Amino acid sequence: MEITQGLLRAVQQGPDAPATVFMGRTRTWAESAERIARLAGALRGLGVQPGDRVAILSANSDIYHEFMLAACWIGAAFVPVNTRWSVAEIAFSLEDSGTAVLLVDENFASSIFDLRTQAPVLKHVLFDGDDSGPDDASSVEELIAGSEPVAEVHRGGDALAAIFYTGGTTGVPKGVMLSHDNLIVSALGSMASGHWTRPGAIYLHTAPMFHAADISGWVAVNLAGGTHVFTPRFDAGAVARMIEEHRITDTILVPTMIQMLVDSPEAAHADMSSLQRLLYGGSPMSEALIERTIARLPGTRLTQAYAMTEMSPVITLLGPEEHHDPLLRRSGGRAAPHVEMRIVDEDDNDVPPGTAGQIVARGGGRMLGYWNRPKETAEALANGWMHTGDAGYLDDDGYLFVVDRVKDMIISGGENVYSTEVENTLATHSGVGMCAVIGVPDPRWGERVHAVVLPAGGVRATEEELRRHVRERIAGYKVPRSFEFVDSMPMSGAGKILKRQLRDRHWNHQKRHVS
Amino acid sequence: MEITQGLLRAVQQGPDAPATVFMGRTRTWAESAERIARLAGALRGLGVQPGDRVAILSANSDIYHEFMLAACWIGAAFVPVNTRWSVAEIAFSLEDSGTAVLLVDENFASSIFDLRTQAPVLKHVLFDGDDSGPDDASSVEELIAGSEPVAEVHRGGDALAAIFYTGGTTGVPKGVMLSHDNLIVSALGSMASGHWTRPGAIYLHTAPMFHAADISGWVAVNLAGGTHVFTPRFDAGAVARMIEEHRITDTILVPTMIQMLVDSPEAAHADMSSLQRLLYGGSPMSEALIERTIARLPGTRLTQAYAMTEMSPVITLLGPEEHHDPLLRRSGGRAAPHVEMRIVDEDDNDVPPGTAGQIVARGGGRMLGYWNRPKETAEALANGWMHTGDAGYLDDDGYLFVVDRVKDMIISGGENVYSTEVENTLATHSGVGMCAVIGVPDPRWGERVHAVVLPAGGVRATEEELRRHVRERIAGYKVPRSFEFVDSMPMSGAGKILKRQLRDRHWNHQKRHVS
Repeated sequence: MEITQGLLRAVQQGPDAPATVFMGRTRTWAESAERIARLAGALRGLGVQPGDRVAILSANSDIYHEFMLAACWIGAAFVPVNTRWSVAEIAFSLEDSGTAVLLVDENFASSIFDLRTQAPVLKHVLFDGDDSGPDDASSVEELIAGSEPVAEVHRGGDALAAIFYTGGTTGVPKGVMLSHDNLIVSALGSMASGHWTRPGAIYLHTAPMFHAADISGWVAVNLAGGTHVFTPRFDAGAVARMIEEHRITDTILVPTMIQMLVDSPEAAHADMSSLQRLLYGGSPMSEALIERTIARLPGTRLTQAYAMTEMSPVITLLGPEEHHDPLLRRSGGRAAPHVEMRIVDEDDNDVPPGTAGQIVARGGGRMLGYWNRPKETAEALANGWMHTGDAGYLDDDGYLFVVDRVKDMIISGGENVYSTEVENTLATHSGVGMCAVIGVPDPRWGERVHAVVLPAGGVRATEEELRRHVRERIAGYKVPRSFEFVDSMPMSGAGKILKRQLRDRHWNHQKRHVS
Repeated sequence: MEITQGLLRAVQQGPDAPATVFMGRTRTWAESAERIARLAGALRGLGVQPGDRVAILSANSDIYHEFMLAACWIGAAFVPVNTRWSVAEIAFSLEDSGTAVLLVDENFASSIFDLRTQAPVLKHVLFDGDDSGPDDASSVEELIAGSEPVAEVHRGGDALAAIFYTGGTTGVPKGVMLSHDNLIVSALGSMASGHWTRPGAIYLHTAPMFHAADISGWVAVNLAGGTHVFTPRFDAGAVARMIEEHRITDTILVPTMIQMLVDSPEAAHADMSSLQRLLYGGSPMSEALIERTIARLPGTRLTQAYAMTEMSPVITLLGPEEHHDPLLRRSGGRAAPHVEMRIVDEDDNDVPPGTAGQIVARGGGRMLGYWNRPKETAEALANGWMHTGDAGYLDDDGYLFVVDRVKDMIISGGENVYSTEVENTLATHSGVGMCAVIGVPDPRWGERVHAVVLPAGGVRATEEELRRHVRERIAGYKVPRSFEFVDSMPMSGAGKILKRQLRDRHWNHQKRHVS
């Protein structure tokens, strides 16, 4: 299958139906296809060959849609660039993927000079914007207007369709290679659950399109012949008004966005009754937020996805009905129709329900691998299963409860301790400003539960107080056996505590048996 | 992906939920999996290797389900045998596919001796039935009880999962090779339309399981973790009572079965309100039958599929809402989310909407090819598209109207004439018992519309009367220019008129330009 088949089917089934809506301009599927075939001709004119990579650094827009399809039209792969990254990180991903053509919109035009300097691989920069753009960039509108439509190059199935760079708190960014079939099967599987887009969907792209989550929605809407509505950034009031104005039926958000949408005074009076399906991921929603969301959006079916780019991206889905169950709403749901998921121990053997281990998955959405990283690919896809690095357990009905990152899980005296559970408990003490719970070497227990605590301003809880606080709330073997009070925490740019730095002080030359 | 992943997911998500219901016995998904792993062990004990074919000649049953999954469990392919075929035809398909192991149920036990004689390839016959069965057959229940469960052999993706033999009115049967991905993507695509099974579906297998249509439903129900209810044959009253008793939510029928179900006095008092989705194929339904079905089953969503085994099998779907439109209900619907479909001329070029040509399709469900028939495969899959042999046209919204078999289409003076349209018109004259409209060579028109008529008993309409009858109803160029009155029609075993025989008398040594 090919990513372009959604476009062609949409043209066949509704040439005059709206394909894209952006900033007051609407284009039909026939117009969209015409522009895509011209843009594809322009890209080919710049020397783009089947298998080549072309990148886009842009806020959400209709051009984003056209650019991705134009790349596929001539058998090239698209690389959606994370707009939150530094120039150095972006330049790294362009160099790493060998991308010679980059489209930049006016929001990021100021980076072009530095990108060209730091990523000499770049040969052509296309510019999408109202003004003429930087001198050395070609106007994408002029290219579209000045190019002839070209015939499609058929390249699909297991061929590379896209590379998504993922960062994380450790190591250099890796390019996740997804095939045409990866993206299509994942979209079909999510649709098959009954919780996701349908023919006729009107979909709002407000989550960033450089993430695989929104692109999965994009693929589904193409397959369903729906309408894409784009907004360059999330703003609760604006999004609420767009939902009302465009009668949006489907969107993907993260819980923080949902919180803003249901709590924002600017969104309070918008009619959002058209919103039939709201998919969220990134993290579960708090019980209180679920309740507020159901109250504010009573006709909207809430679905949670546990997902990762390497799975294109859906792994599990928690459906609308399950959000009404007080226990299940804390789960990530169950394996989607196209996915197999298991919980395994360190040797990749299944563990029984209720026992935590690493979450592994495979199925039609499993990535081809990491671009140019055979070693990391072999590790991640050992035995054919994607090793998520997340720790979780299943209940007797296959519901997944994610408990920790595997590398943050502590095995003390044979018992699994999830750092997040201990941290959440510690954090309820008023004397704790920030905390991290890690495993440190211990001659008797193998690993021992160790807490690093940044005290709350003005208050200084004693080790004994904190230990008692935790012991009253969770099982004894989870209580930190040692404490360390610090003045500052090592943090990543994304606001995550760098636990590896904390652990390194203790482990130095010893090897941990959880990796 | 692998066919077994539905089984494994169902066990993970509902081990104690009912997997199969047949003749008063219910087996949970955990029990089903246990029996499948044992049956797989038994098959391996008989020498079945990955890639081998194993066949089943049986009415619908839970063993059918177990046998297909057991084959996949050890990487073998299953061959569902058409129970309506003669022993000679079945023996041909077993020999052609090189099948050494055959499971036969008690309905077909009497064929075993002849099959063994005519298909020496057979090494082992398994018997499913209450009595002990023929001397030379092994009891499948004893094999399951006496075998150890074996570990799964992982063989999926593009690997062969099944061979379905298709006959037709011409030529020898051909084995359609479908891969794991073919069957899974087709099921996901149909589910993605929103018109097909959902998680929790309770599905009635009453259409024969040797057809790809019911097997597509079977794959979907496994993926959805639903329940399979089996009935060995279609009986309107019994099926209505089963729908009531088991709260059936989904089934696949052909229009004739639907007619019996909504018209049968035995079915009149059954509560069929549980039936949420009813998929039908094989042919469109008459307007009157659609109305009666909607009246009898007001809560049931009717969906038509235009399908063929070679596409695993769905090509287009006509959804429930479209059944209320007087024009669209005569259509076969639009390309399903996982399918690309086009209408092409003799050189495989697209024809515009409204113009008839051959229906071609591709997508995730497109077969691997015909078993051991590279020439027929290359012809059928020319340019990568499955050439259906059906003639049809699209309207401006991509709705497909099937008009004829390509080989029955007549091109007279540059105009396309669909034999079925002329036949349907002729048949409304009381003097016509049976008729066939074919193209015969004509020096002026290339082909000329020629009618072969078997008069109705006691009445003899003249050529002139019939010509006038047709001219009053359809366009002049479609009116037969010559007539032939016959005493008998050449018929196939399946009750179809053998038009090729009728044509051969006229064409002899001339080549037709529609093939």
